[in-house]
Amino acid sequence: MKTSKFADDSLTLHTDLYQINMAESYWADGIHDRKAVFELYFRKLPFGNGYAIFAGLERMLDYLRDFQFSESDIAYLRELGYKEDFLSYLQTVRFTGTVHSMVEGELAFANEPLVRVEAPLVEAQLIETAILNIVNFQTLIATKASRIKQVTADEVCMEFGSRRAQEMDAAIWGARAAIIGGFASTSNVRAGKLFGIPTAGTHAHALVQAYKSDYDAFHSYAKRHKDCVFLVDTYNTLKSGVPTAIQVAKELGDKINFIGIRLDSGDIAFLSKEARKMLDEAGFPNAKIIVSNDLDEYTILNLKAQGARVDIWGIGTKLITAYDQPALGAVYKMVSIENEHGKMEDTIKISANAEKVSTPGLKNVYRIIDKETGKSEGDYVTMADETPQNETRIKMFHPVHTFVSKFVTNFEAKNLHVKVIDNGEFVYESPSLFEMQQYAYNNLNVLWDEYKRSLNPEEYPVDLSQKCWDNKMRNIEEARQMVEQLEQ
Amino acid sequence: MKTSKFADDSLTLHTDLYQINMAESYWADGIHDRKAVFELYFRKLPFGNGYAIFAGLERMLDYLRDFQFSESDIAYLRELGYKEDFLSYLQTVRFTGTVHSMVEGELAFANEPLVRVEAPLVEAQLIETAILNIVNFQTLIATKASRIKQVTADEVCMEFGSRRAQEMDAAIWGARAAIIGGFASTSNVRAGKLFGIPTAGTHAHALVQAYKSDYDAFHSYAKRHKDCVFLVDTYNTLKSGVPTAIQVAKELGDKINFIGIRLDSGDIAFLSKEARKMLDEAGFPNAKIIVSNDLDEYTILNLKAQGARVDIWGIGTKLITAYDQPALGAVYKMVSIENEHGKMEDTIKISANAEKVSTPGLKNVYRIIDKETGKSEGDYVTMADETPQNETRIKMFHPVHTFVSKFVTNFEAKNLHVKVIDNGEFVYESPSLFEMQQYAYNNLNVLWDEYKRSLNPEEYPVDLSQKCWDNKMRNIEEARQMVEQLEQ
Repeated sequence: MKTSKFADDSLTLHTDLYQINMAESYWADGIHDRKAVFELYFRKLPFGNGYAIFAGLERMLDYLRDFQFSESDIAYLRELGYKEDFLSYLQTVRFTGTVHSMVEGELAFANEPLVRVEAPLVEAQLIETAILNIVNFQTLIATKASRIKQVTADEVCMEFGSRRAQEMDAAIWGARAAIIGGFASTSNVRAGKLFGIPTAGTHAHALVQAYKSDYDAFHSYAKRHKDCVFLVDTYNTLKSGVPTAIQVAKELGDKINFIGIRLDSGDIAFLSKEARKMLDEAGFPNAKIIVSNDLDEYTILNLKAQGARVDIWGIGTKLITAYDQPALGAVYKMVSIENEHGKMEDTIKISANAEKVSTPGLKNVYRIIDKETGKSEGDYVTMADETPQNETRIKMFHPVHTFVSKFVTNFEAKNLHVKVIDNGEFVYESPSLFEMQQYAYNNLNVLWDEYKRSLNPEEYPVDLSQKCWDNKMRNIEEARQMVEQLEQ
Repeated sequence: MKTSKFADDSLTLHTDLYQINMAESYWADGIHDRKAVFELYFRKLPFGNGYAIFAGLERMLDYLRDFQFSESDIAYLRELGYKEDFLSYLQTVRFTGTVHSMVEGELAFANEPLVRVEAPLVEAQLIETAILNIVNFQTLIATKASRIKQVTADEVCMEFGSRRAQEMDAAIWGARAAIIGGFASTSNVRAGKLFGIPTAGTHAHALVQAYKSDYDAFHSYAKRHKDCVFLVDTYNTLKSGVPTAIQVAKELGDKINFIGIRLDSGDIAFLSKEARKMLDEAGFPNAKIIVSNDLDEYTILNLKAQGARVDIWGIGTKLITAYDQPALGAVYKMVSIENEHGKMEDTIKISANAEKVSTPGLKNVYRIIDKETGKSEGDYVTMADETPQNETRIKMFHPVHTFVSKFVTNFEAKNLHVKVIDNGEFVYESPSLFEMQQYAYNNLNVLWDEYKRSLNPEEYPVDLSQKCWDNKMRNIEEARQMVEQLEQ
């Protein structure tokens, strides 16, 4: 059974059943058009990293632009027992709200809104599952890629993970996110076609097996491909693969562009040093050594510590699945809703887990950048009517340990949100992927190094403004009183 | 930029660039039509589990049926610099081979062929990436689901993970795989529509926030939905949520079908026991307690050990991402190829890592079931021309510690492969998802319990026949001699 069984298969139905049920209740009670505000945020940075790289906006906008239940969607909901009156209504639903979002490549931290949706309640509700699905994964992979780039420095990183990705969308959207995080290319040809990403790759062990010898396989490859990277570990890396690669490169001279060799198994530290010597001695000091084989930032750091001679890293499984933490855990919470008198009121989600209590109200988030150092002092979450960019001095205090505080002056307050949809009008044009990559790179220069360590980075401050803090405390108190009244 | 930017977007291009490069070399040398045999297998069971559940066949068959480079695929390859002669050829490629595969729901173990492809070299090569991508993920999730079912026994498990899945395909195909592994339903409506899976779900915290009270929210929900599960932890589970659910259920009586309550935070063991008492005392002993909140087989075992009173488990992130091991790592290796005289010859991939050395030749895999106990003695990998089903006594020995051996008599040898494609003709019709689930369930009854423990299960034997073993040793020796000759 394929996904294309329905010619009008639509992502609008890519939602949890309870969203449809809630939509029905809202609609039946006539509150579906009340304006609601939801925020998308995560509570904890992934991988123990000091920052995240936001990604997924372009896909999210496409999803929202196309939001419309198709005929087969409605037919399926009818099968499930939904009534005609509600189904007729559902067919009319489009996304008409306003969305502010970080742009792709923006640095994101815990407990600040990455995306802010202001829309009729029913619309804001129905889109939750899909936009979380998109942003959670793409932000996770962009972050993992950036984390790997922190240890590879100027060496090239290539994304090789399709065969181990969690199904096909993960392969292609993960490849795209890897570029935003700093990777140079992908092996996935479809991702190359769809997103304009450079594709890379030469040959596998199967080629050598098909020709039954390194020599014949390399020659055959070279006959048809000018740029040659030979995979040297099919039989024996140092006794057969590398010497044969050198032999073939010498025999063919400038008929080919001998880029180098790839190692895919064995002790990479040892083999790469030996291969480097052999290549240098044979007169190929510019030949590159490319390695792959279950690499991530930890193995790369260790290989480098052992003096491995690697020019290009091919990263597969550990990147494309975010192996050490395969889910980001971003949530999407209502922070405000219009009441029966047309006035916006804050909402809060109380929880026995203190860190799960949401921060109510329509808010903005600013990056406070010291004008002298050019470095960030932290992010600053305010109520939407505050204007820190017009202030000369702000107090930043820790949202849990509130006595930890500082006053900041001579700063620029950069609003991290861009309006991407304005009352249903799509007003944002995405830059190219490599512009996003450059943007992420530039953003990282605004962070002090201690936030960029892969092991035990300092905690970057994400502080609430005094007004935002007071408002949260007031809402918590009101919720507490409500529960107490119920008890009596 | 959406994946549908190209009206003829095709999964045929969902492959690694090196596959295309190798295809070109094969074609240029005129060996592209030589018959090759590849096997898909994994080397290590995931999660430390004692077995895996094979899944992904239906999707794989759809992919192979539709295999054909589209116009925009060819145009993109042209942009990459491939020449017209090769592109003209590529346009003619379809899948014309023969495929044997385990069926979905079959128990699979390490180092045995899950799928065996016999096809012209170029076809077998080009499909590698996509079929690994499909089978790796779906088998992983079906296995994780089955593992969770081992600890939940007769309680119902629902799949809730879409928002945390690794992009959209993972959400829907993961939901499908979860059913094969034993789950009862998914929250993803699109998966329900595409695959005919029961969908489940009621409401979220947002409903309660929208109505500003548990009472109003529950009443509103009940107005439109006969079957009611109320989420009770928005403000305070025991002081507000549960008492209000009971109150609303009493007020509405048989106007609704009060199924129960859902807990999504806090101490589930404590809260579920307290909620059970309250429900029982209020006269609702049949009301179900549904829980969700980052559950997996470990938390479930612990909650049960603490006496948690849970009837239905909602499992999200940890299942849909296979959180503790998010990649299966199956590989696809050439085991045999036609030589220039039209004769099939074995191929082998040697590796410095002994467990990575492939097992050459066209092979079958049998499950050896003791006719008396009805339990399996192990799996038995043979050369294709062996017929263990006709033998009365076979010797099974450990493929590493070869002195560990036993003779088996009075057995049934069940061939684990079914022919699904016969020279390009698709001859297999998939059963329904719940038939696959039942098949997996029946298969598990053939395993002794010690293989089904979630912690430290016994190692299930996957043995090579003597002939298969001898053949492997001969191939290793030949490869060794070839490398030695190169050294001289």
